[in-house]
Amino acid sequence: MEKGKNGGWVRNIELIPPTLQDNTADADRLTGALKKELGTEFVDIEFDLLKRLPQILRESGYRVRCILFKQHGRWLLLDADAGDDRIIAGLAVDLGTTRLVLRLIDLVSKKTLGEISFDNPQISVGPDILARIHFADQEGGLEKINRLIIDGLNKNIENLCGECGIRPADIYLFSIAGNTAMTHLFMGLNPRWIIREPYIPVVNSPDVKKALTLGIKLNPIARILIFPNIGSYFGGDLIAGILFSGLNKSDDTAILVDVGTNAEVVLGNKNWLMACAGAAGPALEGGVTKMGMMAGPGVIDKVSIEPDSCIFHIHTIENKTPIGICGSGLIDLAAHLFLSGMVDIRGRLMLARCNKRIKDINGIKHLVVVPETESATNADLTISQADLDSLVRSKAAMYTILETITSSVGIVLNELSRFYVAGTFGSFIDPRSAISIGMLPDLPIDAYLSLGNSSLGGASMALTSCESVDEIDKIRDSITYLELNVNQEFMNRFSAAKFLPHTNKSLFPSVKQMHQERI
Amino acid sequence: MEKGKNGGWVRNIELIPPTLQDNTADADRLTGALKKELGTEFVDIEFDLLKRLPQILRESGYRVRCILFKQHGRWLLLDADAGDDRIIAGLAVDLGTTRLVLRLIDLVSKKTLGEISFDNPQISVGPDILARIHFADQEGGLEKINRLIIDGLNKNIENLCGECGIRPADIYLFSIAGNTAMTHLFMGLNPRWIIREPYIPVVNSPDVKKALTLGIKLNPIARILIFPNIGSYFGGDLIAGILFSGLNKSDDTAILVDVGTNAEVVLGNKNWLMACAGAAGPALEGGVTKMGMMAGPGVIDKVSIEPDSCIFHIHTIENKTPIGICGSGLIDLAAHLFLSGMVDIRGRLMLARCNKRIKDINGIKHLVVVPETESATNADLTISQADLDSLVRSKAAMYTILETITSSVGIVLNELSRFYVAGTFGSFIDPRSAISIGMLPDLPIDAYLSLGNSSLGGASMALTSCESVDEIDKIRDSITYLELNVNQEFMNRFSAAKFLPHTNKSLFPSVKQMHQERI
Repeated sequence: MEKGKNGGWVRNIELIPPTLQDNTADADRLTGALKKELGTEFVDIEFDLLKRLPQILRESGYRVRCILFKQHGRWLLLDADAGDDRIIAGLAVDLGTTRLVLRLIDLVSKKTLGEISFDNPQISVGPDILARIHFADQEGGLEKINRLIIDGLNKNIENLCGECGIRPADIYLFSIAGNTAMTHLFMGLNPRWIIREPYIPVVNSPDVKKALTLGIKLNPIARILIFPNIGSYFGGDLIAGILFSGLNKSDDTAILVDVGTNAEVVLGNKNWLMACAGAAGPALEGGVTKMGMMAGPGVIDKVSIEPDSCIFHIHTIENKTPIGICGSGLIDLAAHLFLSGMVDIRGRLMLARCNKRIKDINGIKHLVVVPETESATNADLTISQADLDSLVRSKAAMYTILETITSSVGIVLNELSRFYVAGTFGSFIDPRSAISIGMLPDLPIDAYLSLGNSSLGGASMALTSCESVDEIDKIRDSITYLELNVNQEFMNRFSAAKFLPHTNKSLFPSVKQMHQERI
Repeated sequence: MEKGKNGGWVRNIELIPPTLQDNTADADRLTGALKKELGTEFVDIEFDLLKRLPQILRESGYRVRCILFKQHGRWLLLDADAGDDRIIAGLAVDLGTTRLVLRLIDLVSKKTLGEISFDNPQISVGPDILARIHFADQEGGLEKINRLIIDGLNKNIENLCGECGIRPADIYLFSIAGNTAMTHLFMGLNPRWIIREPYIPVVNSPDVKKALTLGIKLNPIARILIFPNIGSYFGGDLIAGILFSGLNKSDDTAILVDVGTNAEVVLGNKNWLMACAGAAGPALEGGVTKMGMMAGPGVIDKVSIEPDSCIFHIHTIENKTPIGICGSGLIDLAAHLFLSGMVDIRGRLMLARCNKRIKDINGIKHLVVVPETESATNADLTISQADLDSLVRSKAAMYTILETITSSVGIVLNELSRFYVAGTFGSFIDPRSAISIGMLPDLPIDAYLSLGNSSLGGASMALTSCESVDEIDKIRDSITYLELNVNQEFMNRFSAAKFLPHTNKSLFPSVKQMHQERI
C-alpha cells in the first residue's frame, strides 16, 4: 500500500520544534512532515492558515490536527488546529435532476451524521434537463437557474447542520455527483453545447474549487470536489457509481447499469472499463402510462399475479390506497402479466385470460389494475395496450444496449459474474421481474446487486478515503466510451429483443421454465 | 531540452475542433493540448475562464492564445483569447527595505515596457527592518504596515501603467523578490518570530497567490509569485540574485555576494550551492560616518587620491556640490588613504602625511575630505578615526565571512573563477578599492562582475522564462545553509583581516605591489 493513502483527510501530525540548527519556517516544517506522511512531493497550504499557523504551532506544542484535501493528485493543507472535540465535517451530495440527497459525514470517525433530501428547486423553471438547458440559455437564465440550486443547497445545508448540532462552518469538504448538465448548472456553466451536435460539455474534469467561489456557504476555506463526466450523456453520478461499486478494482468482469429513461452502462474490471449510454425510453420509469408516477405514498411499487387464478396482489408504498404505479411496479406488473399468460410473448393483452379486467377506452384496450372502488383517485388505475407496447420497446432497448456493449468486447451477457444496478430507481426493481420480461439478462439472482444511491455512495467515499479521490481521476481517464450507433446490427438485436422475454428463448432458460410451468 | 520549457507564459495553441467521434469537453480539449505542448500531466484551469471558454473557442475557430503560469511545478491556465494586439504584461518587483523598483514586461515579446521606483512607504512607521517588525507586532500594526506597502504598490502600478499606455488589468503575472521580513509584511504575515530565537519565518516557500488575495490591483485572475527564502536572514532577493547570476548553472565554482549591512554570500556551481549570511556592520554602506548617506545628487560616490601629492579627486553624483559620501565612495576613500600612505595598515591616520587635512573634534582625529568652502553643507565633510576603525572592522567581517564559507568546502578564495557582486550598492563599488582594503579577495579585476539590481533581474526572469520558475524551487531546495558560528577560528580569521589589506600580505599580491610602488 502506498504511503499515506489510506488515512482520511484529517491527520494528526507531530513536529520536531525548531532550533537554531533547524530553522525551517513554520509552514515548510509542517508541509515537510506532511510530505513524509503522505508520500508526496508537494503540499500546498491555504493562505488563511498561513497567517494563523505560527500561533497554532506554538500553542499546540507542535502537535497539530491537519485538514487536508487533494486536487488532481496535488495535496492541499486547508486548516490545522490543536485538535479538540470539535467536529470536522464533510458533505456528500447526490445532485439529481429530480431530487437531491445530502449526507453529512464526520471526517474523523467517517460516520454519517445525518441526511436530508429535497426536490431539485430547478424544477420550478424546467421539469426536465432539456427545458432547464433552454432556460439557462435565455438572458439571465443561467444566473437564475444556478441561484436556485445554490440557494436550495445552502438552505438545506443549514437545516441538516441544525439537525446534527453543527454549523455549516464546520464543513470543510463537499463532494457532489450529478449528471453532466446538472453539474454544469451547479457550477454556473452554460450547458448549451451539451444538447447541440457534437454534444460538447464545457468541462469533463472540473478542478477542485473553493466553496466560496461557487456560493456554497460552508467554512470559508472549504473545498468542493465535483465528480467528472465522460461526456454530455455520461455524468459524474455514474463515475461515483463505479467508484462505489468497486467495479474498477474487480478481478472478474462485471457490469454496472443505471436504469432509467437513459440507460447508462459500464462494463469492465480492474484492467479496463467501457461505458455507453442510450435512450431506453421513459416507459421503464412509468413515465408513459397515465397511472405512472414517481415513487411516493400510495404508489404501487410491487405487483404479483397468481398465475392460475389471475388474482392480483398489489403493494403500495406505506400501504396507502393506490394512486398510481412507479417503474418497479410496472416491471413487476408486466412480468406477472406475461408469466400468468395475460399478455403473450409480444406483450399483447390476452382478452380471454384478462377477462373482466379489460376495458375499451377510446378504442384502445386497457387492463384495469386497480378498480375505481379500490383506488384513491376514484377512477380505475389502468394500463393500456399502448403502454405495454411502449414498455416492451423500452425493455428491448435496454437489453440491446447491454448486448451491444458486451459483444463489443466479445463477452456473452449471461457470463457476467456480477450485475450492479445503480440508482434509487434501480434499487426497487425486482431482478426476477426484469429478467422475466427480458429487460435484464438471465443471470442467477444473486449475481444482481442493487447499489442503492450509488451517486451519493461514491460522493461519500471521496470524503472518507483519500485513495478514492485518486481513483475518481483514474476511473474517468481509463473509461473507453462506446458510441452507440443505431446501425443494422443494433436494429436486428432490438427487433429480436422486442419479445417477452426474447425471440431467442434459450437466452432466458429460467423464464422459459417458469413460463412453461405456468401456462 | 524538456518539452515546452523554453516558451514563455503566453502560448498559441491550435485545437482540432470537436466531432461526434471526439467529443472531449472544451476545457479538457484545451488543457489536453497544453499538456502535450508543455509535456506535463496536469493543467489546472482558472474558473473564470471556464465560464467564457466555449464562446472563446468557437469564436476563435479553436485557435487561442493562452496565458499560463506555474505553481511549484503545476501548470495553470489563467486566460485565453483569440489573440490580438492587446498587450499581456507582467510586473517584476524588487521589494527593498528602503526602495522598491517595478519593471513592467511584455509577456509576449519579453521586452521591458517601463520601470518606476519609489521609497518603501513603510519607512514612515519604521526606518529599518527591526523597527517594522516591532511595529507589525502591535495591535493593528500588521494590517497597517501591510496596507502601506500594498497601497504604495497599487499607486505606482497605476502610474507605471499610465506611462506605458496599458491598464493594470493587462497585467496577469506579478513576481516579487525581497528579504524575508519584507516579504512577510507584503503578504500580511506577522514576522515576529523572525527576530526571536531560533529565528523562524512563517513560510520559506510561499505558494503562488491570486493578486486579489493580497490586495494587489491587476487583472482579477492575475497571479503573484513570491520568491522563497532560506531563512530569516537569507531572503528571496538573494534567491532572485542566484537565478539572475546563473550561479546555479555554472560549471566552475563561483561566489555571489550581496554587500551591505548584512553580507549575504552564496558559493557554488551547477552541482551544489552553499549560503551564509552575517553582519558586516553599517560602515560599508556609509551608515556610521557623520557624512555617510545613501546615494543621491551631490553624494560622493568616487574618490581618488594622488599617492605622491595627496591631492584628492572627488566625484559626486550628478556633479553637484558635495553634501556627503555613500558606501562606494567611502571604500574608495579608505583604499586611497591606504595606498597613499595617509592611513597605515591598521587604518590609523598618519598625521604627518595627512598634514593640514587633520582636525581635532572633541578629542577625536578627523580627516577633512571636503573643506567647508567646497561643501554644500557649509561645514567640513570629515571622516573620523572612529569611522575608519568601524570601516576596518566591517571589511574584516566581510572578508572573514568569505573565507569561512570557502574554507568550509576546502576552496581557496583566490581560486574562484567568478565573483558576482549583487545589489544596487554592490554595483557602485570599485572592486580595485575593495581589494585594496582587503574587503574582497585579490582576484583579477575581470573576475568581478557587478549584477546591478539582481533581485529585480531574477524577478524579471520569472516572467520571461517558464524554466526559471522551476529553477527558483530547485535553487531554494538545493542550498545548504551554513550557520556562521562566531567561534575561535572565526575570531582568529577576523583578527587577521583587521589589517589593510590583511595580516597575510601574500593573500593580496596586487595590493602589496601597488602599496610598495607608492610608499
